[in-house]
Amino acid sequence: MARLKGFQKLTSVDKALRKLLEALKIQKPEAVSVPLDSALNRITARPIVAEEDLPRFDRSAVDGYAVKVGDTADASQFKPRKVTITDKDLIGSGEAKQVWTGTPIPAGAEAVLMLENSKRTDDQIEVWTALAACENVSRRGEDVRKGKVAIETGVRLKPQHLGLLAALGRDRVEVFEKPRIAVLVTGNELAEVGGKRRGNQIFDTNKPALFALCRELGAEPIDLGIARDDLDEIVGKLKAGLEKAAAVISTGGTSVGVSDLVPEAVDRIGKPGVIVHGVAMRPAMPTALAVVHGKPVLVLSGNPVAAMIGFEVFARPLICRLLGLGKEEARQKLRAKMTRKTTSALGRRTFVRVHVHERNGEYFAEPISARGSGVISTMTRANGYVVVPESREGLAEEETVTVHMFSGIESGDRDVQKTAHT
Amino acid sequence: MARLKGFQKLTSVDKALRKLLEALKIQKPEAVSVPLDSALNRITARPIVAEEDLPRFDRSAVDGYAVKVGDTADASQFKPRKVTITDKDLIGSGEAKQVWTGTPIPAGAEAVLMLENSKRTDDQIEVWTALAACENVSRRGEDVRKGKVAIETGVRLKPQHLGLLAALGRDRVEVFEKPRIAVLVTGNELAEVGGKRRGNQIFDTNKPALFALCRELGAEPIDLGIARDDLDEIVGKLKAGLEKAAAVISTGGTSVGVSDLVPEAVDRIGKPGVIVHGVAMRPAMPTALAVVHGKPVLVLSGNPVAAMIGFEVFARPLICRLLGLGKEEARQKLRAKMTRKTTSALGRRTFVRVHVHERNGEYFAEPISARGSGVISTMTRANGYVVVPESREGLAEEETVTVHMFSGIESGDRDVQKTAHT
Repeated sequence: MARLKGFQKLTSVDKALRKLLEALKIQKPEAVSVPLDSALNRITARPIVAEEDLPRFDRSAVDGYAVKVGDTADASQFKPRKVTITDKDLIGSGEAKQVWTGTPIPAGAEAVLMLENSKRTDDQIEVWTALAACENVSRRGEDVRKGKVAIETGVRLKPQHLGLLAALGRDRVEVFEKPRIAVLVTGNELAEVGGKRRGNQIFDTNKPALFALCRELGAEPIDLGIARDDLDEIVGKLKAGLEKAAAVISTGGTSVGVSDLVPEAVDRIGKPGVIVHGVAMRPAMPTALAVVHGKPVLVLSGNPVAAMIGFEVFARPLICRLLGLGKEEARQKLRAKMTRKTTSALGRRTFVRVHVHERNGEYFAEPISARGSGVISTMTRANGYVVVPESREGLAEEETVTVHMFSGIESGDRDVQKTAHT
Repeated sequence: MARLKGFQKLTSVDKALRKLLEALKIQKPEAVSVPLDSALNRITARPIVAEEDLPRFDRSAVDGYAVKVGDTADASQFKPRKVTITDKDLIGSGEAKQVWTGTPIPAGAEAVLMLENSKRTDDQIEVWTALAACENVSRRGEDVRKGKVAIETGVRLKPQHLGLLAALGRDRVEVFEKPRIAVLVTGNELAEVGGKRRGNQIFDTNKPALFALCRELGAEPIDLGIARDDLDEIVGKLKAGLEKAAAVISTGGTSVGVSDLVPEAVDRIGKPGVIVHGVAMRPAMPTALAVVHGKPVLVLSGNPVAAMIGFEVFARPLICRLLGLGKEEARQKLRAKMTRKTTSALGRRTFVRVHVHERNGEYFAEPISARGSGVISTMTRANGYVVVPESREGLAEEETVTVHMFSGIESGDRDVQKTAHT
């Protein structure tokens, strides 16, 4: 009941995260081999080494004629030079051999004249342009050299990586297993969506949102259900979660009220237990961070917005590590101008939800007003958030800020390419 | 064979895209009901209307005491005011009733005093702060009012939308069916990864990359296999694709060589056929755009990089429409400084692959050098691209440009929160 009187001392966001990460023993996830077709967004578990040069021979990059460079010197459409078509294996001066995209370059040839820079008449070719050595040739090994690492460990595989893997002849790739994140929602006031509400119960929003946040990062959420505000029930579910998962994320039961049960439950299970309780941030101040048997337990606020911001600040960097990522993935950021001022409390890192829009090529961030951290529609109206440092009491109108984007900005105009200029 | 002499006239990117979109008859995709758990990143097919106020009663947003505002005027920790605990249903002056987060506000109460701004002694409460009307109260309907649209049609569902849907009691949501995109790769020189290469064949990279690009957007790719450079085979596969899918994307067989087969095949199938062939862009100049029976056929270059850029420029806006998105999704953009100059051809929109990194809070874009559009590792080394307009002959060193990002930037420092400041 000591906590009933409020948090004695709040920990800064930076210190809280550092304490959490230092207290953990993060194990490298297991590797699993998956077909290329299932590898999008998975994380490489081994470096991908090229087993042969890519390309494995000098190839033509275009359709045209393999020639000697000297035969093209000073050539232009108005002052063409001429070469003679051959089908010999070795190209000599004054000769040209037809090649197609991907065809090996014949011996003796130094470059490829593109079809559109030539004119054929019988067995003669007019050369309309001068070529540099190796022009329009994909040289053996220019993409990746044999024995070199094409893709490092810990890289999230995007479409272009899958293309490269295919080029290297890999139809499977070893990736890290998805870390399992157990999600526990607590609170007598909560009913599961799709189920029945009793009395003044409301539908829980945290499980659907946290499940989706885990999945967006590539982790696999595990459902521990909704626990009543009952210490034994919470202890039981947390234990089950710690057994099955690499981390547990809970919501609710972390404020300074009588229902401050989750931190208490965590402390019952094992050491060191709760290492941070109360963070100098807004929203999500009542967040607790705990470690049990080397595994993290993030005790997030029950308020939907606070739970999502708590996830953003603590679960995201944690999950990046559990995924086996080589480098932490930050959200996309952009610089925008505040459309009006905001106020925030000195000493608290404040997360201001904003809607960014583009006008005449400039970005503007409109703060979303809301009084509480329970108004979940503020998160759907926002497309990003701005972080106000602890040293500031707000943001000024027209101040340029960094916005961390939840999702892309819609172009003002439906034609993306029009707005795609530099 | 008229095309053998090169493209007579290139169409600008903007005009090409406009012509394509104007020639299409895009049908609204079918709606399908999915459980909330499968709805992440799907697109809403109906507006989501609130069937009741959210919240449906005035709720406490915190743990504390429901009070009259007048009883808190001028209160502070050093000059506290006092109220008496009651458990009556109607709060009067000088009275306070304990409430928890989510509890309905008792009648007569005007605000909630947070536990941490109070001190309890027996049945008396010391009030340590002055409250405004409705402070710490989530008012009925403040999140969403009954009858109002909470989420519009055509919205991509992010974690926060799933939370809001749950709050509204929706455990299922109507979303658009994923559009099917048939992918046809052509070229005698290509072998399927996992299969055997004959002679000088190379492994196809385009199918894995295009499949992943389609999936990233939320479309469902369909495999038409690899076609030989054979008109009848290509016609057959294109026809099959047009029957099964909302669009067909092919690669290869679109240059001005003798293997310029795909545009010819498309023209054989139906009207209007090829409407653009040759686009004033680099890479991806030999792109053709076609419409058959109202359905789009994008005939992309066989070069892996050109195919991906062609997808970016033409398939992305097209698929956004086929998905039923209300607004086109652009890639995340950021402003960065070029680390060195680049050159490009006047009159061609040029897509320069760059790697963006952050240094001292500033973004720098390093152009990735590559001579051909076949070097796929340039795409894995890049994390974005810059668009050089047709009117420019390159970008200057230190010029500030807009980068379209393929993926997030890694923070220089592992602790995201440190770099998260404004």
